[in-house]
Amino acid sequence: MEPRKLIVYIACSLDGYIAKPNDDLSFLDRVQKEGEDYGYHDFIANVDTVIIGRRTYDWVVKQVGFFPHSDKETYIITRTSKPAQDTINFYSGSLTELIFSLKSKKGKNIFCDGGAAIVNALLKENLIDEFIISVIPVLTGDGIRLFQNGRPEQALRLISAKSFETGLVQLHYQKFSE
Amino acid sequence: MEPRKLIVYIACSLDGYIAKPNDDLSFLDRVQKEGEDYGYHDFIANVDTVIIGRRTYDWVVKQVGFFPHSDKETYIITRTSKPAQDTINFYSGSLTELIFSLKSKKGKNIFCDGGAAIVNALLKENLIDEFIISVIPVLTGDGIRLFQNGRPEQALRLISAKSFETGLVQLHYQKFSE
Repeated sequence: MEPRKLIVYIACSLDGYIAKPNDDLSFLDRVQKEGEDYGYHDFIANVDTVIIGRRTYDWVVKQVGFFPHSDKETYIITRTSKPAQDTINFYSGSLTELIFSLKSKKGKNIFCDGGAAIVNALLKENLIDEFIISVIPVLTGDGIRLFQNGRPEQALRLISAKSFETGLVQLHYQKFSE
Repeated sequence: MEPRKLIVYIACSLDGYIAKPNDDLSFLDRVQKEGEDYGYHDFIANVDTVIIGRRTYDWVVKQVGFFPHSDKETYIITRTSKPAQDTINFYSGSLTELIFSLKSKKGKNIFCDGGAAIVNALLKENLIDEFIISVIPVLTGDGIRLFQNGRPEQALRLISAKSFETGLVQLHYQKFSE
């Protein structure tokens, strides 16, 4: 059995923003197309654990009305720990310890669902195994950057680059150990 | 005859940097491959005019030993105007006026050779017709960003996404008029 991987699956604009100011995600509407899920179904079928920042979690719950991954073991990264509720764990400890502990157990892949603060904290610890980044054909011009300054250099290996009719390009990379 | 286009042809890391701190471009070495020029020869054959920032120009001359586009009409964007030297013009006026003036004449395409300050100034005036961005398979972690904050939103149309054996992905977009 393959080891579990920590995968960031996320969309961003060509200029690298995952949201415009005020959490505006309307640019994602440009690539909405009936019957096209950009591989999400297949991706999520191989995931049993979700890591998400507290602010992103709150935002998702507010937008969607519920948390769409409640069938998966979920770790909400937060400064204020709280008791677990069913599959939802509130985690305020070391990310490295969390990922190592999850990887020491058998299971499917671990999906990092953002936000940028969590992605960058995981990157600083070199914990992310794969990136699946859907590049939306737009320059949003401003907003929250997927990649923040001040991380170590990390080499990647391209797995695939797929382009879709809507102009979305999905880039798939894995960590490259030199 | 097709109208002349202003094209940005540039390489950046997956996290959106065109150089690491201290103008370090060593990450580009990762995709050096004998006999592979990533379409540069074909691109430059259709260019007769170059626009480049003064700092980038100085850097290129220092690195290469000479300016490689001296066969082309060149506009160095600078705060301190100087008399022209053969094909080299030092320009401190309005970028919009320069581009409109160039496009009113017949000719081949106009290549914006950077740096980021010029690209972003041109973007703010919505003057760039096409982007050919070569994404290098690396997270450099820090440096000079291709896209800076505080620009207007601009829709793009994907022309192509080509991946190469080295892991470089070349994204080609054109301005999308809505």
